[in-house]
This record gives sequence, structure tokens and C-alpha cells, in this order.
Amino acid sequence: MNFRVSSDLSYTLRGPSTFFFAIKCLATGGQRILNENLYTSLEVPTDDFTASVGMNRFTRIRTSGSGAMQVRYQADVETSTQIADVASLLADDPGRLDPDAVPFLFPSRYCQSDRLRQQALDLFGHLPDPYSIASGVSDWIYEKVTYKSGSTNEQSSAVDTLEQRQGVCRDFAHLAIAMCRALNVPARYVSCYSHLLNPTDFHAVFEVFIGKLWYVFDPTRLAPLNGLVRVATGRDAADVSVCTIFGDPILERSEVICNSLDGQFVPITRDTLMAANQVIALL
Amino acid sequence: MNFRVSSDLSYTLRGPSTFFFAIKCLATGGQRILNENLYTSLEVPTDDFTASVGMNRFTRIRTSGSGAMQVRYQADVETSTQIADVASLLADDPGRLDPDAVPFLFPSRYCQSDRLRQQALDLFGHLPDPYSIASGVSDWIYEKVTYKSGSTNEQSSAVDTLEQRQGVCRDFAHLAIAMCRALNVPARYVSCYSHLLNPTDFHAVFEVFIGKLWYVFDPTRLAPLNGLVRVATGRDAADVSVCTIFGDPILERSEVICNSLDGQFVPITRDTLMAANQVIALL
Amino acid sequence: MNFRVSSDLSYTLRGPSTFFFAIKCLATGGQRILNENLYTSLEVPTDDFTASVGMNRFTRIRTSGSGAMQVRYQADVETSTQIADVASLLADDPGRLDPDAVPFLFPSRYCQSDRLRQQALDLFGHLPDPYSIASGVSDWIYEKVTYKSGSTNEQSSAVDTLEQRQGVCRDFAHLAIAMCRALNVPARYVSCYSHLLNPTDFHAVFEVFIGKLWYVFDPTRLAPLNGLVRVATGRDAADVSVCTIFGDPILERSEVICNSLDGQFVPITRDTLMAANQVIALL
Amino acid sequence: MNFRVSSDLSYTLRGPSTFFFAIKCLATGGQRILNENLYTSLEVPTDDFTASVGMNRFTRIRTSGSGAMQVRYQADVETSTQIADVASLLADDPGRLDPDAVPFLFPSRYCQSDRLRQQALDLFGHLPDPYSIASGVSDWIYEKVTYKSGSTNEQSSAVDTLEQRQGVCRDFAHLAIAMCRALNVPARYVSCYSHLLNPTDFHAVFEVFIGKLWYVFDPTRLAPLNGLVRVATGRDAADVSVCTIFGDPILERSEVICNSLDGQFVPITRDTLMAANQVIALL
Repeated sequence: MNFRVSSDLSYTLRGPSTFFFAIKCLATGGQRILNENLYTSLEVPTDDFTASVGMNRFTRIRTSGSGAMQVRYQADVETSTQIADVASLLADDPGRLDPDAVPFLFPSRYCQSDRLRQQALDLFGHLPDPYSIASGVSDWIYEKVTYKSGSTNEQSSAVDTLEQRQGVCRDFAHLAIAMCRALNVPARYVSCYSHLLNPTDFHAVFEVFIGKLWYVFDPTRLAPLNGLVRVATGRDAADVSVCTIFGDPILERSEVICNSLDGQFVPITRDTLMAANQVIALL
Repeated sequence: MNFRVSSDLSYTLRGPSTFFFAIKCLATGGQRILNENLYTSLEVPTDDFTASVGMNRFTRIRTSGSGAMQVRYQADVETSTQIADVASLLADDPGRLDPDAVPFLFPSRYCQSDRLRQQALDLFGHLPDPYSIASGVSDWIYEKVTYKSGSTNEQSSAVDTLEQRQGVCRDFAHLAIAMCRALNVPARYVSCYSHLLNPTDFHAVFEVFIGKLWYVFDPTRLAPLNGLVRVATGRDAADVSVCTIFGDPILERSEVICNSLDGQFVPITRDTLMAANQVIALL
Repeated sequence: MNFRVSSDLSYTLRGPSTFFFAIKCLATGGQRILNENLYTSLEVPTDDFTASVGMNRFTRIRTSGSGAMQVRYQADVETSTQIADVASLLADDPGRLDPDAVPFLFPSRYCQSDRLRQQALDLFGHLPDPYSIASGVSDWIYEKVTYKSGSTNEQSSAVDTLEQRQGVCRDFAHLAIAMCRALNVPARYVSCYSHLLNPTDFHAVFEVFIGKLWYVFDPTRLAPLNGLVRVATGRDAADVSVCTIFGDPILERSEVICNSLDGQFVPITRDTLMAANQVIALL
Repeated sequence: MNFRVSSDLSYTLRGPSTFFFAIKCLATGGQRILNENLYTSLEVPTDDFTASVGMNRFTRIRTSGSGAMQVRYQADVETSTQIADVASLLADDPGRLDPDAVPFLFPSRYCQSDRLRQQALDLFGHLPDPYSIASGVSDWIYEKVTYKSGSTNEQSSAVDTLEQRQGVCRDFAHLAIAMCRALNVPARYVSCYSHLLNPTDFHAVFEVFIGKLWYVFDPTRLAPLNGLVRVATGRDAADVSVCTIFGDPILERSEVICNSLDGQFVPITRDTLMAANQVIALL
């Protein structure tokens, strides 16, 4: 599938700041950047980094003065997905583990799986396999946690969300990841552009490693799973925050768009997958 | 320098468990494994993983039954260090940043730099450069935090240590890392064997990226910095915990040894470095 | 019923300290102190206070030097209880509220009912009346939380216990109180001597105000409810801690005893009450 | 002094709710209610309670339906204050303690003095007497914590404020109280109407018991200390929250006014008191 994604961020600077943006799309085996462009309204030092961790792409922008700054990114991206029968996953050796999945078994800043182990066992310990755990956790969160804009902030974690029972996509993903890891299921965070997400914004979902691939789940059920364009993959939002800032600029405006460039787009959702007893992976 | 390190861990198993050990020494540009051996007292599935993240080495052991299990590791390791004048660091372009250092600017499970930013600015915001920040933070922790065995547990984090003002080497390193990252200084956690550490145990210190290298600091001042043998490097203990366990075995006994194999060992400590206005890196 | 209670506490002093003990039994409408004696091994300033809040009795002891100090209390106490049919409670006007019960609707140090409201609603919101809520909460905690000595400390709160799913009598009571208050049911903490508690120690239970009286529940089910001798009543352990200390003495030894002085003692437990569909109040 | 105070609160009801308002002024030895009136726009069950704890006055309003509800209170109140020389306080027996002050030595929901003891000792342990501690704490908070509307919520506590270094009057008072209690100085929370507070709203300050009286301090320095009209006194906001709600109505609008009824009002502030080396108590 082909998508045109863009993000347009306007800041008011107040003294020196260092920004680390993670808004450029990721190039993977299955995701190809057809073209892209990053524009900054100021003549300021701009450095691009690709961290060996997850190959995520960061753009550092260092500003000294005050006033307005606009950062705009646009790209055309070709994505591909793979559908698998749940049955085929269950056939896999449950003990098989990819070396690169190991770090995603451990707790992280916003996914304190070590603190939630008892509750995870209590709620999901009876589930027999990684797929059942991932989908069970995702459905439980959809039912028990209320999606509420502005109910959390960038310091909110899985522990907070489990306690408060409300949050946004980021919080839903964090809680799901923490629960999966607590049960020895490798889980990671995906920051993405999302087609048909309403209202349009960056989106966050989680992936679970089962057998050979990372399969994607969205506890918010707010957008089709085949409309996601991967920006970054990490342990949680700490790794892939859209923007990490040292300094205190104000975000004035943010516009995020993700449109399909194909003739028609046939949404694949949690419900269609459940009906067919399938799962989907973003390649 | 050459060291013989060993760790001997005895567990009582109570039902199925999965262990992830990070006790094998790391092979780096400057650290060479001359020989090593890992022994497990049970005939159980054992898998070795080297995660692309930091190249850390994990040994997964899966047990099904109950009873005693012993895990023993021994290795001879050649290490090398590099000493630099503080002046030379200050000459470096402060904006220079290694791509692989970027992830170590962000908060992690036990180093919630996002939550400590205001206090970090308040305490250390006036310090002019990464070196001053790293050594200032390290000295402040040494003075303000009491080293107290058993005062914390494996869930304790930098926020807890800043609040309670007590902890062990792991907690000291976590707090230092969180403070440095809060001030835009890349900092990471080092799990290590430590010559002349008293009582003998695994040790933890932190490294800060300045200019070209990761320089090491130890807020506990409990052991010489040139007697450290690197086991693993990570964002914090979540990445490199000596043992992450799924299940509930009991650790009955732990013996850790690190001896010099050289004729004589001349300790390099924080004080000798300060006197010479130098820093040290483990290569 | 008549009981002989005693507590014997030995401390090692390390510099000046101020102790606030709450170990003397409370005199209430239904509980009479037949005789009592408090002994302190040192000649130090000792003041008795009876706070208007709950009429709790505090003994302040101020020490200046170092060395050993022993504090011993013994009393003979006559207690009385009242049994009521659950049916009779349900007949009461649910809106009826005693002015002195109002403060026990609000969150307190270790019972953060404000933070647990959503989970309380989720778990117990369907229960129709205060009695059902109190007994439902008490049973749920008995089933879901593991009693484990040493698993918590004096800073542990209801939020921690709900997260960690383990604790001691104090933690069980705190969690129960928080859940009840979150659902608009006045609940308070009772520190007490407890006959047939094993191992012998101070005990903690909770009371819920229903209709006209405070009825007692014990989520630990470790001792008969008619064997409790009230020491203090409060919002939580912060009000009625056996000993609040300013300074850093070490508690070396603690011995607590509560024996029946009557010919025979017929235990009334949660199970006998459930079987008879009754509740019990300590007068 | 004489003041006319009023509060006007508008809610949108969404299903059954129980409100506990603490907006009526307190009658004390030095504060007299000349006249008062509480108006509720709905015909709903309304009960008045005066809890023996601090004699605070609560108004419970129980609503069943949906729609708008307005609650309006107005009163004319005569207040009196007492000024004392700091020197006279220092002359008092530091060991003197009022029984009713004892509960205000212990931690409470939003003032976790038990968790902050080490930091309190570190920051203020050198101060020689209760007055120095109270004013030192108050000044430190004024300097270190940023007053920022909307930066906290009703769950924020002293621990959070010490970490985040920002908050509103309620948070400033909570942190001050926690610090004082951690150092064995009885401290309590005062909810009040406040003349010349800008913008007009309910205000919160703290009182410390020294010698014979509770002296008042305001770490925000936002209003004169002799313009305060006491609504309620408690351990912290949990005791005296302007409104505690069971249910989920929305507060649409709040208007709070406090005007002087006297010919002229001569403000007494922290600075005028410091200059004269005096303290002030609200009688």
C-alpha cells in the first residue's frame, strides 16, 4: 500500500533548546520511503542520527534564540503487511526467541512490567500462549480503560494507566506492553502515522513477537491496522517520542496527515482479523 | 590488565521458571575474553543470545521442576582503559554526538530523567559542560545518598533514591544517569565485576559520553575504576540485570570474585583522577 | 469479655529521639480499662496526650542519650461487642450518616481512595449496599492479596498493595479502607491487641459505618473478631501507628500478648458470621 | 476585621452524585459568623454536618438526575488575628505540645512527611527551632517552586510537588506541611477565603503550632495574611477539600469573592512581619 504522510509542528521558542524529533518514517524490509522532505523554518544546526537501536531515525535541531519555529515533514511511503493464521502461530515452538526480541522482555520507562507481574498473572496468567495473551490483554484494555484526550501527560506510565483506567493511544500501548512482558512475551512500542485515524494525529500501537514475526495490536481500535506507517519502534515512548526537548519551547500547533495513495483502501481491523482467526504484521 | 572473574549462583526452584542471565563478560574493542566457562548443575534447555542492543550477552535457562540449581561462570579477561585530560574534553565540540549515544539521552525504567528535570536544573544547571555535570552529579550523590545494603529492592528507581537518600551501587548509578540525561548528557549503566570491591559482589557504575568516548564514574567510590570488568552496558539495570526471572525461584547463595592476574595492580580512583584533572574510559 | 494485654518493646537509642507511642488501650462506651501500667526503663521526660481526634491516647517519650531503652505496657481490659443481622442493616436508611463518620469518607496517607476510585467502581461498583461492599472488599482482598511478613514497610500504602498484591495486616486494612471510601462508604483503621492471633503481635483491622454503628472486618482472617482489644482508631496507620519516631533508634525486640481472662472463649470469625448472616461491632 | 465572602459554584450533573462541600466559614474563638446563607438551585436532600475533627462544617448534597446545579454561599464574617514577637516564641518551652496538635505531627494523604524525612533533614535539619523551620521552609518553597495554574490536579501531593517543583497554593501548603512534620513540627492546612488574592479564588495556607498558638504562613506570598477568612482546618486538602464528589458531575464555573467591609484595610504580609521580626495567628 502507498501513503502520503505529513506532520507540521509549530513551536514558540523561549531561549536555547535542543529538539530530538522522531517523525521521519522508518525504512524496513517491508516499508520503503519513495520520497521525503524535512523543512525547518529557521537556519539552525540540524543533525540526522540513525541509532543502531532499532535503526530509528532522529533529527536533532538546536536553537539559540526566541520566536517561532516550524518543522514540516512529508513523505510518500510504500508499506506491506503479512497476514497469518493464528493456528500457524500456535504450531511454532513457543520457546523460540529471536536475540533482538530479548530486550523487549524487560521493563522500560513507561512499561514497568516488573511492578505489574502479580496483576498480569492474576488477569492473564491462565492464557495458554503468546497470541492469546496479546489479544486478551488488548481486548481487556479496550474494555477497561477509557480513551480520554488530555487525561494523561508525557510522564504517565503503564502503572498510572492501570490505576486511573484512562489515557490515550500511547497509554493504551504502554499498559499492553507491560502486561505482555510481565508474562514473558516480548512486546514493543510502535509510533506511526495512521490512515483513517480520527482525529488525525500520530498514533501508537504495540507489537508482540510470536514465532518469527512481530504482530501488531491496537487496544484503542481507533484505526485500521493496515493503514499504519511506521515511524519508529522502541521499548516505549521514551525511545521514540515524536519530540524530546531540552529547554522549554511551547508547541503551538500540530497537524498530522496520512492519506492513501491507492485507488481504494480496504481496512483490516481487529474485528475482521478475529472473525478470520488471523493476525497481521507490519513488515 | 588481566582479571579472573567468577560468579556462583545457587537457586531453589519452585515450579517452572525462565532465567535470563547477564553474567558473561562483554567482548569489546578493548576487552578480550581469554577463556570462559558457564556451568549449570541441571540438564535444562540453555540458549545464548547476543542482543544487537549493546551486544549484551544473555543466557536463557528454562527449568521445569523443583529443587536446587547452581549456575557458575568463570572467565579470564584482558581489559584496557584510556586516560584523558579533562582539558582535552573541554576542547571538544560540545555539540558532537554519536548516533549510538542518542538513546542514552532518553529516560528509562529506573532513570526517569523526565521526572527529575527541574531538580537537575536546580542542582546542576549552572555547570558549564558534560564533564562538570557528570563529576558534579557523582560527587553530590556520594555526599547526599547513604550506601545501605538492603535499603532498596529491584524495583527501586532514581526517583525513589532521590526521595529516600539511600541505596546500593545500582541505585547510585541510576540516580546519576537520570540527572545527567535530564541535562542533555548521554549516560548509561555498566554492570561489572569489580576488583577490590568490598564486600565482593557484582558492581554497577555509570558512563557518560563526552566528545568521543564513554568515561566512567562511580558515585559509591567503593572500588578502583581500572579494576572493572564489563559484563553488560545498558540504559539501566532493566537492560542488564544480572538475572531476570519469570517464575519464583529463591536465590539461596551468590558468590562473586574478581582477582587481578597481573603481578601488581595500581588502583586508579576518583581521587587520583581528580588530583591529576583526568578522566578514565573502559575501552 | 476480659483480656490481659501486654506489649514489651526494646530499643537501642542512637542520639536524641522523640517517640510517640499508641499502645495504651482505648476507653470507649463498651471497652473498660480495669487496670493498666506503663513502664519505661529510663528516667526520661514522658507525656501523655489524648487527642480529641478519636480520643486516641499517645505517650510521648523524649530521650537524649544512647543505649538501651525498654517500654512495657500491661492492662486488663473488659470489652463488649454487638452482633447484628445483616437484614437489619439493609433496613436502615442508606443516606443516614453520622457527622463523625464524614472524615472517614475522605482519602488519607495510606488509603488513597481518590486514586483507586475507578478500580473500586470496576470491582465493587455493582454491589448494592455498604454491607455488601465491605464484606465483598474484605473477601476479595483475602483471595487476591498474599499475606507475607516483611513484604512491605511503614511507607507502603493501599496503592502499593493493590499493585504488588502482598502485605501484612496493616496493608490489608489500608486497601480495604481505600476501596470502601472510594465507593462512599465510611471506613476506618483499628489498631488492636488480638487474642489467638498467630504469631502474636499487634493487629490491624478495619471498621465500616453502617446505619448506626461501626462494624468490624478482617481481610486477613487471622484471628477471631471478638478477641480484639482496641488500642486506637484512625483514618489509617498514620493516625495510630504503634510508634512514630523522630530520630533513628533501632527496634531490637517486640513482644505482644493478648490472653483471655474468662473461663472459656468462643471465637466469632468471619465464617461463623457469614453462616448466620450477621456482622459484629466492637463497642 | 470584617469581610463579606461568597462562592458561587455551577455544576452540570450527569447521573446520581453525592457532594460534600466545605465552603461555609468556621466559627472559632476569634472568628464570628455575622450572617450567612447557602442556596442550592435544586430541591435535593441537603444535610449539614459538623465533624468533631476540627469542627469543620460540611454540607452534603445528594442529587439523582442530570442537568445544571448551582450552589451559592455568602457570609459576613468578623475575624481577629494576634501578632507575636518571634523572640517571645523562642522563649517558650520547645517541648510544650498541645494534645490537639499531636495528630498534626503525622503524615497525611497529601503530606507524606514519612517519605520526605531525609530531604527535610538535609535541607532544614540545621534550623534551631520551630519558627525557623516554618519560615525557612516557607521561604524555600517560595524560591524553589513555581506557581503555575493547572500544573497539578487534586491527586497531586507534597512528594509530587517536591519532584516537579511547580503547583498552586494547595500544593505549596502541602509541601510546607510535610517538611515541617518531618522535623517534628506540628503543621496543618487552612482552606480560606482570601482578601486581595489575585485572581480571586479559594486560597490555602499552612499553620504551625509554636508554644501556644497556630501561626500562619503562606509560601505563595499571594495575599495578605490578615485578609484570610478560615473555611476549614485539617491535616491537608483531603480533610477540607472545597468539594469532594462521589459521581462525575462537571464543574462549569466557580466565582469566589472576599471583600473587606471595613473603612480601610492595612495588609500584613510576610515581608512586613519579617521586617518587624513578628508572626501572626488567625484566632
